[in-house]
Amino acid sequence: MNIKPKPHIVIIGAGFAGLETARRLAKAPARITLIDKTNHHLFQPLLYQVAIAGLLPSQIAYPVRSIFRRQKNLTFQMGEVTGINLEEKFIKMDGSVIAYDYLVIAAGARTNFFGFDTLEKYGLQLKDVATAVATRNHLLSMFENASHEADPEKRKAMLTFVIVGGGPTGVETAGALSELIAHVMRKDYPRLNLGDARVILVEAGANLIAAYPDELRKATLRLLKNKNVDVRLHTKMADFNGQRVTLADGATIETQTLIWTAGAKAAEIVESLPAEKAGMGRVRIEPTLSLPLFPEAFVIGDAAFLPNGDGQPLPMLSTVAIQQGGAAAKNIKLMMEGKEPRAFHYKDPGLLATVGRNAAVARIFGISFSGFIAWMIWVFLHIYRIIGFRNRIIVMFNWAWDYFFYDNQARLITRE
Amino acid sequence: MNIKPKPHIVIIGAGFAGLETARRLAKAPARITLIDKTNHHLFQPLLYQVAIAGLLPSQIAYPVRSIFRRQKNLTFQMGEVTGINLEEKFIKMDGSVIAYDYLVIAAGARTNFFGFDTLEKYGLQLKDVATAVATRNHLLSMFENASHEADPEKRKAMLTFVIVGGGPTGVETAGALSELIAHVMRKDYPRLNLGDARVILVEAGANLIAAYPDELRKATLRLLKNKNVDVRLHTKMADFNGQRVTLADGATIETQTLIWTAGAKAAEIVESLPAEKAGMGRVRIEPTLSLPLFPEAFVIGDAAFLPNGDGQPLPMLSTVAIQQGGAAAKNIKLMMEGKEPRAFHYKDPGLLATVGRNAAVARIFGISFSGFIAWMIWVFLHIYRIIGFRNRIIVMFNWAWDYFFYDNQARLITRE
Repeated sequence: MNIKPKPHIVIIGAGFAGLETARRLAKAPARITLIDKTNHHLFQPLLYQVAIAGLLPSQIAYPVRSIFRRQKNLTFQMGEVTGINLEEKFIKMDGSVIAYDYLVIAAGARTNFFGFDTLEKYGLQLKDVATAVATRNHLLSMFENASHEADPEKRKAMLTFVIVGGGPTGVETAGALSELIAHVMRKDYPRLNLGDARVILVEAGANLIAAYPDELRKATLRLLKNKNVDVRLHTKMADFNGQRVTLADGATIETQTLIWTAGAKAAEIVESLPAEKAGMGRVRIEPTLSLPLFPEAFVIGDAAFLPNGDGQPLPMLSTVAIQQGGAAAKNIKLMMEGKEPRAFHYKDPGLLATVGRNAAVARIFGISFSGFIAWMIWVFLHIYRIIGFRNRIIVMFNWAWDYFFYDNQARLITRE
Repeated sequence: MNIKPKPHIVIIGAGFAGLETARRLAKAPARITLIDKTNHHLFQPLLYQVAIAGLLPSQIAYPVRSIFRRQKNLTFQMGEVTGINLEEKFIKMDGSVIAYDYLVIAAGARTNFFGFDTLEKYGLQLKDVATAVATRNHLLSMFENASHEADPEKRKAMLTFVIVGGGPTGVETAGALSELIAHVMRKDYPRLNLGDARVILVEAGANLIAAYPDELRKATLRLLKNKNVDVRLHTKMADFNGQRVTLADGATIETQTLIWTAGAKAAEIVESLPAEKAGMGRVRIEPTLSLPLFPEAFVIGDAAFLPNGDGQPLPMLSTVAIQQGGAAAKNIKLMMEGKEPRAFHYKDPGLLATVGRNAAVARIFGISFSGFIAWMIWVFLHIYRIIGFRNRIIVMFNWAWDYFFYDNQARLITRE
């Protein structure tokens, strides 16, 4: 009698999509290898909180090994995948070769600077722990520098913060930064005239959070203006040289700070895949989430391009990634049993975005609302979704503290 | 009638000594400028906890501006002092000149590599937030690398950790690292044979924690051995090339990790002072804590050299720094009133060192003891001394969690 070895499933990426795939395969009769460039899963929706000194990196990042301590069929490897051979079914990683029976590419997205070299050089971004901490250090340093700058023009430029991109990340960062200035920095720098400080949110389109229903877009705009954010719609950025932002209409803003949240593109590793790419380098996949000619190779999450029922591609959101992770796991289990994989259907769980203290917009079960109730839902949903019971308690404690005492815990400038 | 302007007191350094001086001058009729290279006060006795992933930097570092929010006579400036002119009474900082009436130099100490270039290049140290985080990243990476290293000799070298220096920092780091391996890493790396892992503590002298009474030195040695630390007394390090430690007797240890805790010297800024230097570049000061020819210029803390009653210099300890900070503040107040400054006398508050879980040694009120009770005293004293009520609660919660669940919160490898 033949004893067949257990099939080997390789998952690239421990973001929302890869993590969910791995978890859903916990009881599968298979060997799973999960690979990530870092040793932690990052709860990216709260990364902007690291940048505004509200949370610490370890409170939203959790070691992958700890998550899978009890999952015996899984091995974690930290390292960078440098090549994928779909024909021969192996990947290359740090000089070694790993063969697979099933492959799940959940490599995520990176910042898209659209070829702006100067932006890549001088702009700040919120993509991983390192870039968020660098943004925090830069923002806090601006206040320090301004506190001993005698020239009022230079001081004003140091206290001008430009955020480009009116999506959820841009909106959340602008609102939170404006509150940090109004409540915390005002106390830390009593001699500094923070009336000079400005937070400017630049968006090329006609609306903030364009993917949301119109009443939520309007509510967001109103809430941000209440928080003193200078929102500039229909405004395109043309250049940033580290000292000055130039807009497409020729106007300029003197500032040393530009946070770029206006673009994402699929991870580098999918570039080399022999598959058709859609906008932002995302890989066109089948309704079963696999690559057209390779039913055992799945691409899910931000790196995948799959049109929704209405013909629009599914957005780069954690909710899409998590549902696709579950569907990929299910299809692999079906295929291991010799059955046909099934088509993926996205179930919209609703939309949520926060604009700061007591202010958020939400659309749940078809109902749109904004303000304090939406904000409370946002707070508890995000605490619930953070991995690790300890992290949940600490984040809850910290947010409660910040809420009542107008304080931010993590105002450290660290050397890089 | 003449209105005399308030005297200007400049304090260099926001460590234990500088912070205490500034606080004790809260009600003085003076303008105070406090200067530090960083924007935070660091609770250095717990820095080794950052290195072993037990605490986060912000839990033991607190923004200086927040500490002095309510002290109206004080201005904080972040920056580096580049020159001191004692004759003309001014300092230079980031291109500007600041005149003073009284000067307190509390610039602290830095790591002393005793001219070992290779050590400076390849060795790890625990001096500030950046070096502690770099040490953490290195330690955690060794386990990741070992987990996919096929060669057993190389794997063993990756899991060999050498700590040089048997003072309190070396002892605390060795004990904590050994526990991290035994309790946490064993769970995170179930496939890795952690029987290969070794923590080696190298000390050139005949004793660990040489400044402590003999019964505590013996207790420390016993507690460390219980925790599987390989303690090597009478052992001198000769070289470290990043791959191998060579000892003075020619023996070698294959390892990629050397944490250097065996030397400190006074901060760079005191090198240029026209004053006599004692061992480790420390400045010889008068019993009133001022420089011999400049009664208005004080040097306190680790950078100062002052013999105790028994002729031995006061050690580089936070308790000495804090008491000197109080004494310097008092002497400045006396001098502002036209009175004579007084000589400083150090009151020994006792000794404490922890060796890890349930294990510490203490000497308080002339009584030496070790074990669980000493450890509980250590825990509560350290929580009490951390700045910020929030930090105290969070550190207490985290330690309790780690204690009961054998978990360490901060196991993130961050890019540098």
